[in-house]
Amino acid sequence: MTQHTPAVSATPDAPTPDKAAPDGLTADRVLAAGARLAAESARFTGFGWMRGTSGNLSEVLTRDPLRLTVTASGLDKGELSPSDVAVVDSGGAPVPVEGVAPLRPSAEAGLHARVAAVAGAGAVVHVHALNAVIAGHRWPGGVHLRDIETLKGIGREAHDDEVIIPVIPNSQDMTELGDRFEEVFDPRTPAFIVASHGLYAWGTDLVHARHVTECVEWLLAYAVATA
Amino acid sequence: MTQHTPAVSATPDAPTPDKAAPDGLTADRVLAAGARLAAESARFTGFGWMRGTSGNLSEVLTRDPLRLTVTASGLDKGELSPSDVAVVDSGGAPVPVEGVAPLRPSAEAGLHARVAAVAGAGAVVHVHALNAVIAGHRWPGGVHLRDIETLKGIGREAHDDEVIIPVIPNSQDMTELGDRFEEVFDPRTPAFIVASHGLYAWGTDLVHARHVTECVEWLLAYAVATA
Amino acid sequence: MTQHTPAVSATPDAPTPDKAAPDGLTADRVLAAGARLAAESARFTGFGWMRGTSGNLSEVLTRDPLRLTVTASGLDKGELSPSDVAVVDSGGAPVPVEGVAPLRPSAEAGLHARVAAVAGAGAVVHVHALNAVIAGHRWPGGVHLRDIETLKGIGREAHDDEVIIPVIPNSQDMTELGDRFEEVFDPRTPAFIVASHGLYAWGTDLVHARHVTECVEWLLAYAVATA
Amino acid sequence: MTQHTPAVSATPDAPTPDKAAPDGLTADRVLAAGARLAAESARFTGFGWMRGTSGNLSEVLTRDPLRLTVTASGLDKGELSPSDVAVVDSGGAPVPVEGVAPLRPSAEAGLHARVAAVAGAGAVVHVHALNAVIAGHRWPGGVHLRDIETLKGIGREAHDDEVIIPVIPNSQDMTELGDRFEEVFDPRTPAFIVASHGLYAWGTDLVHARHVTECVEWLLAYAVATA
Repeated sequence: MTQHTPAVSATPDAPTPDKAAPDGLTADRVLAAGARLAAESARFTGFGWMRGTSGNLSEVLTRDPLRLTVTASGLDKGELSPSDVAVVDSGGAPVPVEGVAPLRPSAEAGLHARVAAVAGAGAVVHVHALNAVIAGHRWPGGVHLRDIETLKGIGREAHDDEVIIPVIPNSQDMTELGDRFEEVFDPRTPAFIVASHGLYAWGTDLVHARHVTECVEWLLAYAVATA
Repeated sequence: MTQHTPAVSATPDAPTPDKAAPDGLTADRVLAAGARLAAESARFTGFGWMRGTSGNLSEVLTRDPLRLTVTASGLDKGELSPSDVAVVDSGGAPVPVEGVAPLRPSAEAGLHARVAAVAGAGAVVHVHALNAVIAGHRWPGGVHLRDIETLKGIGREAHDDEVIIPVIPNSQDMTELGDRFEEVFDPRTPAFIVASHGLYAWGTDLVHARHVTECVEWLLAYAVATA
Repeated sequence: MTQHTPAVSATPDAPTPDKAAPDGLTADRVLAAGARLAAESARFTGFGWMRGTSGNLSEVLTRDPLRLTVTASGLDKGELSPSDVAVVDSGGAPVPVEGVAPLRPSAEAGLHARVAAVAGAGAVVHVHALNAVIAGHRWPGGVHLRDIETLKGIGREAHDDEVIIPVIPNSQDMTELGDRFEEVFDPRTPAFIVASHGLYAWGTDLVHARHVTECVEWLLAYAVATA
Repeated sequence: MTQHTPAVSATPDAPTPDKAAPDGLTADRVLAAGARLAAESARFTGFGWMRGTSGNLSEVLTRDPLRLTVTASGLDKGELSPSDVAVVDSGGAPVPVEGVAPLRPSAEAGLHARVAAVAGAGAVVHVHALNAVIAGHRWPGGVHLRDIETLKGIGREAHDDEVIIPVIPNSQDMTELGDRFEEVFDPRTPAFIVASHGLYAWGTDLVHARHVTECVEWLLAYAVATA
């Protein structure tokens, strides 16, 4: 994988990605991220998008080298505590941080890291939103959207802008999924669907990723309802 | 735009529109409106009608000259604080108020002001309710409703009253949208759909506007389900 | 209207209907009923069944003469306080009670009283549940249900029991609606649909009426989904 | 019924089934289970899966002899207190426990016990989830699922694993229902649908049973939506 220029441009009020790693890998920063990830996971759980123990969320901790705080595997996403996280590297492998009890990262952490590297995302959301999986089933070649106001919520235009939410086949191999994502990646589109699986969406920070996720889900629900 | 006689008649328990502007433009009044707009926005967010940072709500602050308190742009509508507002004039341009930190008004503030002027609304709601956009997609010429009890909730009759919820094409130009609204405006109908976008609804005050919005959405959901 | 034997048999844990009227008409009893009606209304509002200011709930206060506590007209059903009620007689007309500020009863109070008299209900629920109105639109001659476990939740059998949820045409005249209800009334079936309007359901007390309402709505949603 | 080897393998963090019965039958343990069952029931009620007084949940208290704590019959599942339970044996008959006021167990307690015995479940969930009953209506011979990520949430594979959620005809006779369940039981599949009735799902403990229930319901919703 070559160097990528972040496709999501930093907005003035978004946190500046920390370049001072590995010193940025403090327990305080990890647990602060964990608190944000827990609150956000509970929100998405309330929407029914993280049934069982499904889905996972991440925040970029340091950009160079790439380190992410990601929700731990196998836990109820409506009941996370700030320490229910793992820190991973660009391949999704766990990275020890002093003062943070090591938990098993989600298997999908590698794909989160890939999205962060390729798309320049500051936070990545992966949820099993039903409408996304229905849309992926209906349009395996990608979901075409155009001339809908809510496209502005994902950074696109409300008029005359042909948007495709890519759909990639599912796999248990995160490198394979990452390669498929990179093949279809359009820096203008901050989301893709894993067919028969769920949705990935991202933003400059976690609140932005929330907004993108909510808007993509709305757009997919609308596409399904008006097909 | 000519002078308009408010089409929504004031009900006895509705707040009397303040005629004593510009003296009515106090920070206290603006922040009190902001608190009401924040609570109402959170309510609509809970319905899934304000995904991302979409939608905006306003209250008329003074009628002559027309000034509105409108939710600020780009914020999560489930997490507003009372000061997350802007004060705008009849064209949607920001108006400074001493003691109120100036925030960027929503681009749609101009359309809110137009609705307030043309329809005499005391409060205007704009939400991205999915059923409204689906109905607008299905019936681009307007949604015909008749002989449904819930029509009483928008000030119409439950029997023998042909109601049309107008649908106008979307635009990013608020003057254009306002002109389209005025072309289809029927003083008896306190709502319209912007196609591929969302719903506008209004009332004498914010609680009334809430009730109208809820009833219109119910009617549109019913129309879609029984089409 | 002739004398009616209550069709809903009192269960051991249901409150015994007060026969000692008019002495039973105390402000304390009315406000206690009002608190229960407010909580129950808020619950149904949370389901989206009382949009705008729609719907109303009642409890029988005294049986002989028949007096009901009914939610007041024109208020948001998610925000009622215990005093947001009126006391009405068997025709739905307001009855003054010392210590209770007189509010306007819902126009539909007369139908509540009729249901209490005819069906022997201790509490009556009227909500604008969307599935009920959709079912009434689809089956104007009545909704046939059979061989569904949830029928037990409305006092019927899970097997070999042909249940019809009656559907009557809408009217603004409560006597007319009451006559239509009586025509189709089957003492075994504690609910009916007013076409293009909403659902009436009842029970021995308010909690029972809640359970019947929830089960009828579920059954109608199921009927619509599997039609 | 012959001896069964539990089909659900104990996970490291699941509570070890208590073999020291009948000494394990203490009021403390029963009420602790009751508190967990009450919280879980309230959660499912919030999803609309326990309308009226429908559904019931259970936890295995002791394995040999088999004793379960099961939610009591006829109560609102959103308002249970820890003591709103009964203790039953392998046939669903009440078992007295000192310090626990005897409540009537759900009639379905016998089926819970059968599932615990046959499948080795530590906790059993029975809910009237609408999507499950719709799926049972559509596919009376069983719901076929394959190649969906969420299958991992019920212990199956995301790829190349043909999963059938069995559907059995409804009955009021728990022995008959239990026999039907055993006929279709596949130890790899922790759920079945009772046609025209509801869903049974289970896990090693109550939290695991919650996750399985949520994933099965999601899968059935997806199957219905994409059929």
